[in-house]
Amino acid sequence: MSAAGRVKRRVVVDLGDRSYGVSLGHGTLPGVGAAIRKHTDASRAVIVTVPGVGRRYAGVVRRSLQDAGLRVHRISVPDGDATKNLGQVAELYTELLRVGVDRHSVLVALGGGMVGDLTGFAAATYLRGIPFVQVPTTILAMVDSSIGGKTGVNLPEGKNLVGAFHQPQLVWIDTAVLKSLPQRERAAGFAEVIKHGAIWDRDYFAGLERDAEALMRLDSGPLIPTLARSVEIKAEVVRRDERERGPRMLLNFGHTVGHAIEKLSGFRGTLHGEAVAMGMVYAARRSEELGFSPDSTADRIEALCARMGLPTRTPTFPRRAYLDALRVDKKKRDSRIRYIVLRGIGEADSVPLTPSEIIPLRRRRGASAAS
Amino acid sequence: MSAAGRVKRRVVVDLGDRSYGVSLGHGTLPGVGAAIRKHTDASRAVIVTVPGVGRRYAGVVRRSLQDAGLRVHRISVPDGDATKNLGQVAELYTELLRVGVDRHSVLVALGGGMVGDLTGFAAATYLRGIPFVQVPTTILAMVDSSIGGKTGVNLPEGKNLVGAFHQPQLVWIDTAVLKSLPQRERAAGFAEVIKHGAIWDRDYFAGLERDAEALMRLDSGPLIPTLARSVEIKAEVVRRDERERGPRMLLNFGHTVGHAIEKLSGFRGTLHGEAVAMGMVYAARRSEELGFSPDSTADRIEALCARMGLPTRTPTFPRRAYLDALRVDKKKRDSRIRYIVLRGIGEADSVPLTPSEIIPLRRRRGASAAS
Repeated sequence: MSAAGRVKRRVVVDLGDRSYGVSLGHGTLPGVGAAIRKHTDASRAVIVTVPGVGRRYAGVVRRSLQDAGLRVHRISVPDGDATKNLGQVAELYTELLRVGVDRHSVLVALGGGMVGDLTGFAAATYLRGIPFVQVPTTILAMVDSSIGGKTGVNLPEGKNLVGAFHQPQLVWIDTAVLKSLPQRERAAGFAEVIKHGAIWDRDYFAGLERDAEALMRLDSGPLIPTLARSVEIKAEVVRRDERERGPRMLLNFGHTVGHAIEKLSGFRGTLHGEAVAMGMVYAARRSEELGFSPDSTADRIEALCARMGLPTRTPTFPRRAYLDALRVDKKKRDSRIRYIVLRGIGEADSVPLTPSEIIPLRRRRGASAAS
Repeated sequence: MSAAGRVKRRVVVDLGDRSYGVSLGHGTLPGVGAAIRKHTDASRAVIVTVPGVGRRYAGVVRRSLQDAGLRVHRISVPDGDATKNLGQVAELYTELLRVGVDRHSVLVALGGGMVGDLTGFAAATYLRGIPFVQVPTTILAMVDSSIGGKTGVNLPEGKNLVGAFHQPQLVWIDTAVLKSLPQRERAAGFAEVIKHGAIWDRDYFAGLERDAEALMRLDSGPLIPTLARSVEIKAEVVRRDERERGPRMLLNFGHTVGHAIEKLSGFRGTLHGEAVAMGMVYAARRSEELGFSPDSTADRIEALCARMGLPTRTPTFPRRAYLDALRVDKKKRDSRIRYIVLRGIGEADSVPLTPSEIIPLRRRRGASAAS
């Protein structure tokens, strides 16, 4: 990490006066301070991170910010999704006040999706909004949660029920940090990459089929272009629909049943990306059964997920449990849910379906959601 | 209230796709349901109010919404600024989930500034933002806090430290509700009206000088046009600067020293508008002393405030206490504060001053901020 790597790709998230750049490279972490200096008017930075990530990377980020002339503070929050709650946000506010953070400061979210969501929500609401920067350290955060400005926390009643749309000033992606990411979390991150191909770009999907094993090894050849294209797709969807009134819903592909699985598993034992993988395969099969997509669509998605080490079969819970889990989906309107189906690889659509249409009664008794 | 009054004036807050209308009239409360039906796609409404206001007006609003075909719930929160905190927001979230509020619902803030700020912040953050409507029942809320999308709550460390910019879908002003407003709160509300004249429109200020006593009696002749012009001025300032990066700061006229007075009084005994009146007279005098505005500016402001029953002399606290109170102003940058001075009646400017320049040392010992 001593010699700073060069930024190889830059993607712009084009949202008018809320536009920002996403920089991707290998070994670029020591350059983050200069970039923040360039893209904000902040004289003070607060790094928010979790202990594991902080131990490895907060030192580099701190020095980089100091070299760029900023005063730097660091706040460590406990790891795990349980940290993403209102109490933790209140503690952050207190700490930000204590160190004197004002509107000319910047929060730096250094970590995975939880750190980004929590830090982003604090940035969205402290003094009615201060700048923040995303430095994602997981694949999931790089291609999904750090892009698009969704921030928020969980309530006891459910996940992500409270939040705000607040775009970062900059997203800084250094793929070198992924070497410390466990294999299982790599795979979970690639689930969202597969999703981007499935809903938006058949050529990209074919590229993933070509490079699956190399990507799982984090080979730098295909890795950065692949992550960059995934960021581009997410950015394009967000650009068309920042506030999730229309096209952005397509990003929910695999997430309706995926969320149900997470919920029925008590949010334990299954990573978000794993639940999404199962949900995508399920939704692709359902798309075929309902006549929306040609045969082989689901097989290709299932095969790609499997090659990347992702589970593809939905767990066996009673059908009634799945229906109940779907019914409290926060995007429900009356009884129908906007379910995302495929028209084929690279093309998705939103159709209003009831939970019973999403999880139909199968002939065999005690049927689960597994197809 | 049985025969619905007609809307007499409509002001548009022009913020692109976040634009909305402010309707003013006398006895128009029974029309609010139809207006909400027209300006939102909500099928469900939640009235948030305090007990006193709710007892008087929630029934009319509820029937009006029901007649327009909406399902209606009502949430009562305790009166007083102490209610405006994160704990109360968390309770609101729980209640909103309990009654099944989703993105196709609307929150209706029925009350003064506290109800509007709290409800607006809940609307800004619940499910990352749902629609809300302001039905202000105080003059202060009608001309100031309900316009412009500032929402938020207090922290133990200070007021309005947490919040979001979230514009309402509609502001519905019925001046008939003011008859139950105590005289002292009327006066406090007119402090912000005077402020609008002082910083923006000398003819409007002259009109207030002409109509002061009639306005305090709530004479319908001058009242609605006066409130409408005040709303227009606020809307115009907000249009130029929604996020408070520039011109919107002019609305802080009288608020720097005003906030210090509130703080030094422990937020007891002095209404916000009263503190603003003292802060305006102080700032106008200081504007003259610093050579920004011609003589007589401060005299006119002081006389108008006095005629409306507002205090004009800053309370005697030690100078050091004032300086300390100014130093923690949340808009501080380094040591200078953007202090709002007048160039004359109807024209304001922001100048960076240190606390010592705002509250200079006077010759006599034990000097207070009072000029």
